[in-house]
Amino acid sequence: MDERAALAVLEDELGPVGDDAAVVSDLVVTTDMLHETTDFPPGTTRYTAGWRAVGASLSDVAAMGGRATAAVAAYAAPEFDESELLAFVRGASDVCDLVGAEYVGGDLDGHEEFTVATTAFGTTDAPVRRSGAEPGDLICVTGTLGRSAAALELFERADSSERQSGSAQTDTSDREADLERANELFRFEPRVDAGRTLAPHATAMMDSSDGLARSLYQLAEASECGFAVDSSAIPIDDAVFDTAETDEAALERAITFGEDFELVVTIPEAALESAEAATTVALTPIGTVVDDGITMDGEPLPDRGYTHG
Amino acid sequence: MDERAALAVLEDELGPVGDDAAVVSDLVVTTDMLHETTDFPPGTTRYTAGWRAVGASLSDVAAMGGRATAAVAAYAAPEFDESELLAFVRGASDVCDLVGAEYVGGDLDGHEEFTVATTAFGTTDAPVRRSGAEPGDLICVTGTLGRSAAALELFERADSSERQSGSAQTDTSDREADLERANELFRFEPRVDAGRTLAPHATAMMDSSDGLARSLYQLAEASECGFAVDSSAIPIDDAVFDTAETDEAALERAITFGEDFELVVTIPEAALESAEAATTVALTPIGTVVDDGITMDGEPLPDRGYTHG
Repeated sequence: MDERAALAVLEDELGPVGDDAAVVSDLVVTTDMLHETTDFPPGTTRYTAGWRAVGASLSDVAAMGGRATAAVAAYAAPEFDESELLAFVRGASDVCDLVGAEYVGGDLDGHEEFTVATTAFGTTDAPVRRSGAEPGDLICVTGTLGRSAAALELFERADSSERQSGSAQTDTSDREADLERANELFRFEPRVDAGRTLAPHATAMMDSSDGLARSLYQLAEASECGFAVDSSAIPIDDAVFDTAETDEAALERAITFGEDFELVVTIPEAALESAEAATTVALTPIGTVVDDGITMDGEPLPDRGYTHG
Repeated sequence: MDERAALAVLEDELGPVGDDAAVVSDLVVTTDMLHETTDFPPGTTRYTAGWRAVGASLSDVAAMGGRATAAVAAYAAPEFDESELLAFVRGASDVCDLVGAEYVGGDLDGHEEFTVATTAFGTTDAPVRRSGAEPGDLICVTGTLGRSAAALELFERADSSERQSGSAQTDTSDREADLERANELFRFEPRVDAGRTLAPHATAMMDSSDGLARSLYQLAEASECGFAVDSSAIPIDDAVFDTAETDEAALERAITFGEDFELVVTIPEAALESAEAATTVALTPIGTVVDDGITMDGEPLPDRGYTHG
């Protein structure tokens, strides 16, 4: 059984598990587990890892339109190195600070692979779910897509340059620049503020952690609708063009790679102006909600994306 | 750096991290990560694993005197087997039901070792901390100690009998009985009700997950006090005597093995009667709070216990 089949089994048992976070009374709760081999490429600093792991959970709170209250992390590693541990905790604290949440610590645990489990919680009176999109609504995304895909390319380039060429001076400084930029791209801003300010205008919302294409499929399933997307409207991050060789490759990365933690949100056309005015983050309409079918530029858009390991 | 040294480093960075759970406004939050190799001996069913993992976090809420609201779990395994996953979720749900909390799902994740990260949260107006014990108070424990030590012995006996003797009929049924009993002992009742009803009477409280001896050291450090314990008063679970060969061995397991998730609580002598009347769980005074030094029957009690892997 793969992860999606397993989720379907759980849905039968527990009821709908489709949203980014669970809601209990006015509390939003969400948990994630990340591993070195699948989530932190070689060159990821522990500061970035702490930021990103906790940020991923804060993003789920954002996707429900919640105010972020606090986050915890369980940190498992083969050994506890003081500077690594402190860097992790500072990354976790800094991303919490950025969105007005409190980092309240967690658990330490010996484990052969560096593994982090994070939980974030927040509050909301009116959670925005994946269901609720109506034909005629606009489908929008916050920020830009492709940052994590670009980061991964840079991590890979730095790693292969290290393995191939040893210690030539120019290589070293190029490599360091790649790693610094990759880490920067990996430290995204969780869209908590945007989620909260867009919530009153939104009919459906989720984050783009599985990629835009898959997010559209998930929203379509929950809302029983379709989407018609215009590829030229998709806000591709500049960083993608640093490594993508063609515009087609750049677009492909922006819509399928995922892990960007932007918000994918449907908004009635009449509410778009007030939604844009309410948020300080770029909000880009990329298409419209239709009755059924998911298309880009009139062609079927395949359900491809990142299945989280 | 071992886990205790690492905790000291974190304490410098984040402020005191010594309690069983963090408190943010009136919210109590706690997280734990458990692994197959260190926490779930061969023979542990997934139902028991779900119960125990979520129960461990609920126990931390109990230790703060909190009402348990909800719990989430991130479930990582090499593959998702439908019956294992459902068993896990049912165990998690059942332990939540037992203490009036809601199990609200979590995250699924591919990982080479079965690993579970759980987070529980609850509410309290007046959290009970590890600091606050005063000389003259009584030190008490809920329930009985040694259940998990006894369970582990039974798991080991079943495992070695399977490896040694193959398929003789009597062995098989003995082994099954051992495994059933071990799983039962592993599924403890988190002391949420007891924690909540003892809280108004308690001066300090924690759970016994690291063993009684280490719990006393932790309470002593936080409260700047000592303890004088009477070994004959310690409530040893009957199951310990099934495998322990001598009374000394039984006592040793009860006080050092840990993982029992009972509450260790200090209560002013004058409040003991009302504390006992308030809770439905057995509450046993095992000694008194003194100015300093930790002794059992007048002899120094070493700081031995279970350091969680």
